[in-house]
Amino acid sequence: MMIMDRLYHEAVKKGPICVGLDSTLKFLPKYLLSKDCSDGEKITEFNKKIIDATADLAACYKVQIACYESLGLDGMKAYSETVKYARSKGIVVIGDVKRGDISSTGDQYAKGHFTGDFEVDVMTVNAYMGVDAVSPYYKYIKENNKGLFILQRTSNPSAVDLQNLAVGDDTIYEIMGDKIEAWGSAFRGENGFSAIGSVVGLTRPEEFEAIRARCPHTFFLVPGYGAQGGTGEDIAKILKASRCAVVNSSRGLITAHQKAGCEDEGFAEQIRNATLAMQEDILKWL
Amino acid sequence: MMIMDRLYHEAVKKGPICVGLDSTLKFLPKYLLSKDCSDGEKITEFNKKIIDATADLAACYKVQIACYESLGLDGMKAYSETVKYARSKGIVVIGDVKRGDISSTGDQYAKGHFTGDFEVDVMTVNAYMGVDAVSPYYKYIKENNKGLFILQRTSNPSAVDLQNLAVGDDTIYEIMGDKIEAWGSAFRGENGFSAIGSVVGLTRPEEFEAIRARCPHTFFLVPGYGAQGGTGEDIAKILKASRCAVVNSSRGLITAHQKAGCEDEGFAEQIRNATLAMQEDILKWL
Repeated sequence: MMIMDRLYHEAVKKGPICVGLDSTLKFLPKYLLSKDCSDGEKITEFNKKIIDATADLAACYKVQIACYESLGLDGMKAYSETVKYARSKGIVVIGDVKRGDISSTGDQYAKGHFTGDFEVDVMTVNAYMGVDAVSPYYKYIKENNKGLFILQRTSNPSAVDLQNLAVGDDTIYEIMGDKIEAWGSAFRGENGFSAIGSVVGLTRPEEFEAIRARCPHTFFLVPGYGAQGGTGEDIAKILKASRCAVVNSSRGLITAHQKAGCEDEGFAEQIRNATLAMQEDILKWL
Repeated sequence: MMIMDRLYHEAVKKGPICVGLDSTLKFLPKYLLSKDCSDGEKITEFNKKIIDATADLAACYKVQIACYESLGLDGMKAYSETVKYARSKGIVVIGDVKRGDISSTGDQYAKGHFTGDFEVDVMTVNAYMGVDAVSPYYKYIKENNKGLFILQRTSNPSAVDLQNLAVGDDTIYEIMGDKIEAWGSAFRGENGFSAIGSVVGLTRPEEFEAIRARCPHTFFLVPGYGAQGGTGEDIAKILKASRCAVVNSSRGLITAHQKAGCEDEGFAEQIRNATLAMQEDILKWL
């Protein structure tokens, strides 16, 4: 099944939850921090236990590569082991890498993130450089059933610096959305969504509804729930019109044990409970 | 000395040459390919020999991380060893990583590329997400003498997709340039340039001259020479007004041995000769 169809079906079946593994040392329970192994190994164990505890609830996992790059080679090994473990459970894995470069360089990123040690199912891409930053992945979309999420309207406060500027009657994020629809038109699956999706934050729900209506073949990766302010009611408004999105939460889920004061092996159960609460917070509005 | 002052002085002293280590297996001489070691180790040796042969000519090295990510963990080790080796020679190293993310994630990228295994002096940044993608690095600019090059007007054909769109009287790349000038205003060195530089391709020289005039405190990393079409005369026109740039060549230099049919240990001498020819091609117009 085409990757975005697979993600769509998982989101309909389990709920649209993307568990964000933005795992850093400060989120680890004390029992793990005190283990006699490398920082990367501690984070790998943290992630594996979260995956075990949430695999029946997560439509997908998003792994934020920056958290692993920050630990150097040891961190990159943890990234590799995390994405391999999550994929071995049969769950869609999004590499949140936000790469983007000229074609010859894009070819290298495509090989790096769609094959080998860092292989994921879908990666995030920054298209400030235009279609050259996107087309190197087409081969992998066609031949290896991979997918993309391209940054359109991000969830951070300064997204407006560039993305909300007006070019004639349209904003940059609307223009980017039109491009994503066009680039994806060759890669549509049985549910009408293309293998080239879009990242739109939940922090301005009224913008999001207009984006969804303008990009009917685009599947969305939605950050901004929880720690960044978006609510279940916000996303449910979008999903009532079309089950076109997965909603990411990272800190809101993977720090749940700390809020509960749990520093032992029971931590993953707390993260599971937070994931269930997020699921309920969204599904009750649908 | 502030990092961009250091780069300015190197460029004035040696010539404005940035040697781009976009090293992939297909560029290696046959004697190296046949060695009994990993692909990453072969590339590390290739790079070290290039660095040894060009250290007196290069104002800086730019290492394209995509080429290393494409080889997985073995490639990341090669990246780490390459940047360490070039820095050990006292030469400025630019990590061409084009990262960009929300603040909490940017903190992780900053740690990852300005400390530890992947430490470089300057990194490239994509600011589609606005100032949030830039401000996490300020701490390292101030406390660790690091610098940035932010994508402004890139050298690839589809740069125009977004960067040349008009917002009122200005293009997106002009607006990005104004932001780079503003963000850098707190970090200016003794030569007037700030620690926050800009990436502008050489592929449209007339645009470049207008950008330079509009961004007088910005130092430029200039791709697009050689394989992408820019000439020594093109860049010399800019440098006559201000010695405000280093010019990168990657494939044009590191494949010189292949054009000369050299597949043995003499390869680095061919790359040195190509670097000398590039230096002359620029300096003869100044």
